[in-house]
Amino acid sequence: MAKWIDGTGFEEDVVVSTRIRLARNLKGYRFPQKMNMEESESLTQKILNVMKELSSNTNYKFIRINNLTPLERVVFIEEHLISPGLIQKPDYSSFLLRDDESITIMINEEDHLRIQVLLPGLNFEEGWKISNEIDDFLESYLDFAFHQDFGYLTACPTNVGTGLRASVMVHLPSLSITGHVNNLINGLNKIGFTVRGLYGEGTEAVGDLFQISNQLTLGEEEEQIIKKLKNIIYQILDKERNVRNGLIENRKNEVEDRVFRSLGILKYSRNITSKEAMRLLSNVRLGIEMGIIDNIEFKEITNLMIEVQPASIQKYANKELTQEERNIIRANFIREKI
Amino acid sequence: MAKWIDGTGFEEDVVVSTRIRLARNLKGYRFPQKMNMEESESLTQKILNVMKELSSNTNYKFIRINNLTPLERVVFIEEHLISPGLIQKPDYSSFLLRDDESITIMINEEDHLRIQVLLPGLNFEEGWKISNEIDDFLESYLDFAFHQDFGYLTACPTNVGTGLRASVMVHLPSLSITGHVNNLINGLNKIGFTVRGLYGEGTEAVGDLFQISNQLTLGEEEEQIIKKLKNIIYQILDKERNVRNGLIENRKNEVEDRVFRSLGILKYSRNITSKEAMRLLSNVRLGIEMGIIDNIEFKEITNLMIEVQPASIQKYANKELTQEERNIIRANFIREKI
Repeated sequence: MAKWIDGTGFEEDVVVSTRIRLARNLKGYRFPQKMNMEESESLTQKILNVMKELSSNTNYKFIRINNLTPLERVVFIEEHLISPGLIQKPDYSSFLLRDDESITIMINEEDHLRIQVLLPGLNFEEGWKISNEIDDFLESYLDFAFHQDFGYLTACPTNVGTGLRASVMVHLPSLSITGHVNNLINGLNKIGFTVRGLYGEGTEAVGDLFQISNQLTLGEEEEQIIKKLKNIIYQILDKERNVRNGLIENRKNEVEDRVFRSLGILKYSRNITSKEAMRLLSNVRLGIEMGIIDNIEFKEITNLMIEVQPASIQKYANKELTQEERNIIRANFIREKI
Repeated sequence: MAKWIDGTGFEEDVVVSTRIRLARNLKGYRFPQKMNMEESESLTQKILNVMKELSSNTNYKFIRINNLTPLERVVFIEEHLISPGLIQKPDYSSFLLRDDESITIMINEEDHLRIQVLLPGLNFEEGWKISNEIDDFLESYLDFAFHQDFGYLTACPTNVGTGLRASVMVHLPSLSITGHVNNLINGLNKIGFTVRGLYGEGTEAVGDLFQISNQLTLGEEEEQIIKKLKNIIYQILDKERNVRNGLIENRKNEVEDRVFRSLGILKYSRNITSKEAMRLLSNVRLGIEMGIIDNIEFKEITNLMIEVQPASIQKYANKELTQEERNIIRANFIREKI
């Protein structure tokens, strides 16, 4: 199980995970979208050679996308270990994954290199420290495309500068229940933060999970970007906790009913979509967050939220399934687990 | 627990209970709606004196409506042991209830006497035999209002003749799911049968429970009325069973999902209306009927269907409750029981 799912993190009643991602490109190579197979191989080998130096310390697995079945590719995406962009050109793309699955170094996504550090709970400090170390290490061997005025150069201008995207996955069920969440999202967008669903850009916010990240990568120091995001996360955290306390005081039975009904359906259904499962798991997580349920751990819910996704269910069944078959197997799977 | 709830009856996968009711009036007394207190008392004593002769054999409890709290009155109605009409003039009305609660003799409902025999499952034979014996016994002491041409005279012309209403409570979840039930009701109405909800005239059909009875009491022998109703019940029984088999063959997972989700919600909810509880209990009963659930007995479900009713829940809590309080206590009660 990936570290971000299995581990215990700070502020875990609201913050599921923290992600730091750095975009880097090598001088002398065209951007992945423009490169040919030969350049791609040359670049990949170059990075692998460098990584051999690092892997004397820690263990990285090297995986080429075209060595994975289509299903396996999506499972990695569902686990948040690689980005959807990495599987677009499967012959060119690959990634290095550390054995505890906390670090992924993606090769030939949109940029030559995407360094991702993914940790449980709120943990910018460790996330930034680790990604910074890897970045420094790689930069000591590789010649990164860097401009005196603009900073690191990237395929998409939205990443130019620091190449840093810091993001936090938060669980905001109380703000959802009370209808505050849309205002919050609009407000965050206005002050320079991006709010996305569980699977990033263009995905719906299922299970009351939101990914909040910095919009700008240019014009600010990395530490400044992270500090601003951290501040805003603490404000959201306070807000969610306050609303939770209000719900416990004023709508206790209603919330208990919602939490336990969700648990009951998860324990008994024989056919369930991933969307419904996410909604119910979110309610159960709320129950844990509020102390209504005490015999289930956060990581069990986080893990289930990943494992009920379509590709993960097919991996569990060890075969491709129709949607209807998935809904049945998903229900069986959840009953086994919860 | 009343015999009709606790007992095991014929065709119990479809038929919940069989009821035979005879309406009788005594010569020399005005109908209950017109009588004064003195007449009412005289009539009541007369009947009680006769019943003393019978109760040497079996044990009857005598209960005056005005000795019951308003809540207790409604509990008897919810248990189907008395009719809603009996509590309209509480100072005039009373009833005798046999210890196994299979026989109720109501005094001063719409008629002077209403003899009700209520048995589990499909059992016209025993129902008719018992009600006939009581009728013969009473008639040997009392002078019933009888007209050569019309038969037994009653307060409402719809009961004149035999004074017999035979009715069967059936559970038709499959015909409901597949949308056949409305056609069935319309068809039955056209050929001389009445279809009512759980609590008789004007009540909604909750929990897929329907009471089917004869419309006509005049112009036919009692045995003929019962035979016709019995025939139609067997047709309905076949239809419901055929549709159930079809559901098992073609929509097995869907039905299992419906059944188990209902069970899950009943086991876990913290706030539930009687209407929702009835709907879910109906689904669980369907699960027993189809062999999907085998660790719950029909009588447990029948009993719960009565015990979740508003007055019964208040009797359980031993105090009057608001609707919201009832919904919470009902959920706790169901969780304890199921």
